[in-house]
Amino acid sequence: MPHPNDPKLRSFIDVDATSDFPIQNLPYGVFSSKDGLAPRVGVAIGNYVLDLWELEQDSRLDVGALGVFAGPTLNAFMALGPKVWSQTRARISELLRHDNPELRDNSELRSRALVPMANVKLYLPIAVAGYTDFYSSREHATNVGVMFRGKDNALQPNWLHMPIGYNGRASTVVVSGTKVRRPRGQLKPPTAEVPSFGACKRLDFELEMGFVVGQPSKMGEMLTESQAEEMIFGFVILNDWSARDIQQWEYVPLGPFQGKAFGTSISPWIVTREALEPFRVHGPAQDPAPLPYLKQAQANNYDLQLDVGLRTPAMNEAMRISRTNFKYMYWSSVQQLVHHASSGCAMNVGDVLGSGTISGPDKDARGSLLEISWNGTEPIELPGGAKRTFLEDGDSLVMRGWCQGDGYRVGFGEVEGTILPAE
Amino acid sequence: MPHPNDPKLRSFIDVDATSDFPIQNLPYGVFSSKDGLAPRVGVAIGNYVLDLWELEQDSRLDVGALGVFAGPTLNAFMALGPKVWSQTRARISELLRHDNPELRDNSELRSRALVPMANVKLYLPIAVAGYTDFYSSREHATNVGVMFRGKDNALQPNWLHMPIGYNGRASTVVVSGTKVRRPRGQLKPPTAEVPSFGACKRLDFELEMGFVVGQPSKMGEMLTESQAEEMIFGFVILNDWSARDIQQWEYVPLGPFQGKAFGTSISPWIVTREALEPFRVHGPAQDPAPLPYLKQAQANNYDLQLDVGLRTPAMNEAMRISRTNFKYMYWSSVQQLVHHASSGCAMNVGDVLGSGTISGPDKDARGSLLEISWNGTEPIELPGGAKRTFLEDGDSLVMRGWCQGDGYRVGFGEVEGTILPAE
Repeated sequence: MPHPNDPKLRSFIDVDATSDFPIQNLPYGVFSSKDGLAPRVGVAIGNYVLDLWELEQDSRLDVGALGVFAGPTLNAFMALGPKVWSQTRARISELLRHDNPELRDNSELRSRALVPMANVKLYLPIAVAGYTDFYSSREHATNVGVMFRGKDNALQPNWLHMPIGYNGRASTVVVSGTKVRRPRGQLKPPTAEVPSFGACKRLDFELEMGFVVGQPSKMGEMLTESQAEEMIFGFVILNDWSARDIQQWEYVPLGPFQGKAFGTSISPWIVTREALEPFRVHGPAQDPAPLPYLKQAQANNYDLQLDVGLRTPAMNEAMRISRTNFKYMYWSSVQQLVHHASSGCAMNVGDVLGSGTISGPDKDARGSLLEISWNGTEPIELPGGAKRTFLEDGDSLVMRGWCQGDGYRVGFGEVEGTILPAE
Repeated sequence: MPHPNDPKLRSFIDVDATSDFPIQNLPYGVFSSKDGLAPRVGVAIGNYVLDLWELEQDSRLDVGALGVFAGPTLNAFMALGPKVWSQTRARISELLRHDNPELRDNSELRSRALVPMANVKLYLPIAVAGYTDFYSSREHATNVGVMFRGKDNALQPNWLHMPIGYNGRASTVVVSGTKVRRPRGQLKPPTAEVPSFGACKRLDFELEMGFVVGQPSKMGEMLTESQAEEMIFGFVILNDWSARDIQQWEYVPLGPFQGKAFGTSISPWIVTREALEPFRVHGPAQDPAPLPYLKQAQANNYDLQLDVGLRTPAMNEAMRISRTNFKYMYWSSVQQLVHHASSGCAMNVGDVLGSGTISGPDKDARGSLLEISWNGTEPIELPGGAKRTFLEDGDSLVMRGWCQGDGYRVGFGEVEGTILPAE
């Protein structure tokens, strides 16, 4: 049987070469069809969603635990572990192949199990156990450092020695399409004597990838590189909405709190680690060499292109304001997870770890408005003459990402969010 | 019917005047008896645990949702809201009163529903949704500030304007009695050129109170003082174990991460907000006046005495190393919750919010070894001549807390933890 990543595989479902969801991808999500079925687990294939709960009930798919796909999250499936993840993906690939009549020629099952993507509603695909946000792009950390501390002290002394991160707020991780309300908070611009409370004036996005932990680790135990890798179920695009002015006044000495707590958006489809395998690349050289617990024997970065678009209420379509690549990250996801557990911190099924803002070496590869507008001093010019330094009410932010194969893409779809005015 | 807080109430169960669990308290926990029953919800009364699931099955207790007390956490009960909390406590009080024969004279039910405390195992009483740690004692923040920045810059500029806090790690919140492994991590003492990875050398505790959020708030919405108060289910004693050396090297600019992620211990009994009502007091005067969203119309502090004891393997009993009071906190729990939700951050049933280290005005009222040993320069002398600046392997830390009524105490029991050596 060919491997599910085989570039030659074809499905009996027509999939365009620019689609994010060819048979080589098979990302997992949670959906309901508009005819009112309860949310359940599905896989994206071309313009369709394959209903895994229907396949399970029809005995076409057996993961050894009936009902795993019937629920509104992927957590029960993830808990079954990497062998089951791999076997399940292989079986789904088999069912969708152009040369397998099992589903292709069973029109009754097909009509139950294949739902046009246009007819579904997508949900947050996991119950988020914990949300942690890293800060692992050297270009981003340097840009921010230069802005606030000058060129000579841009990187903090610890930055090159470990993946710096903080615990974020899991309760406000939401799925693409969820509107995000402009937060209120304490603001104290440098010119003000005392703080005031009001609507954020410097509302920003941060382009990140997130990964989903699918297996637990125990309190008191560390992880090796290979243990950490095996625990990673898959990846999403992540928008870490940020209120720069709230953050600036609150963050010394305990870090970001309300400036990052009002919303984090993720794309609805979790692309499995296995599907990204063909796109592994080495990250940037790490100098100084990481301490032994952070050493990597493998290439743990991914060649994954990322686009950010901004659409104001006056625009018909989004304008691209950034194009970058996940491969630029200095610290890999595996290193982040190893470091996260290094003190004996238990990891849980459903933990989401954000990469940190992904900026690249070029000026057009910056992953936040803070950097794109250079702290508000270089506004973006939009079609029609409007300008933006930070986000205004009604603005929509759209991120897309994909790995480019030979004649196909392994893509993530998009994560979109629109800003509601402060209450 | 007398109010459950009435100091004159007596139970048919003998309760000593120094017991933490008179009929005026009735704290909730999760227990199993040694004869192998599954964990379920109980209430502490004197030296007994009252099995609420037995009472529910016997139709003596009806909260409108059967099975709420059968599970291993209090979350389902908390979700029912403050009216049910109050009605349930009143009913339990009624059942335990000396002048009510219902349970008192039903020896069959009594033998099923009253389990000697000595025969039970106690569990983490809630599924912790999120864990947030504040920094709200002015004395603690000042002590730490003086040590690291000198007297003139002790308090950060934002400290007097809002309750400073950060998101902690919910996955390692554990119940009293859970052993805590000394963490490993990156260490870079000021004298070292480069960091190394190894066992923490400056392991500390932090004496805190935690409160448990029992009702949710919506993403995008703020809370008023009274809304926040109504959401608080109850309080626990909380030990925020801290690796000072790991924290010191990692915390700029995103705050504590692995230095606080390896364990947080809480006491097993949740004392309800209602039981603490008679012990409300005003906190310290707040100057400057808080911004309007943080203003308090009520006294939201509690006169709650706290003791910390240290027991080394060579000692038979713990020696008291601190005595302080929860009333000293500058920012109240209600203000912390209002601030936490101020950006529109959704709060969930089962969120735990730590007060921050509780230090008092006197030298013997310091809530951490960092302060007690003044950053390691003034060791504690223990019986037998041993000394401590920070915790050593095998050391046990015991915290107790209670509100003193007239002839009775509303107490928390204890939170205990013993340090295991690094692996």
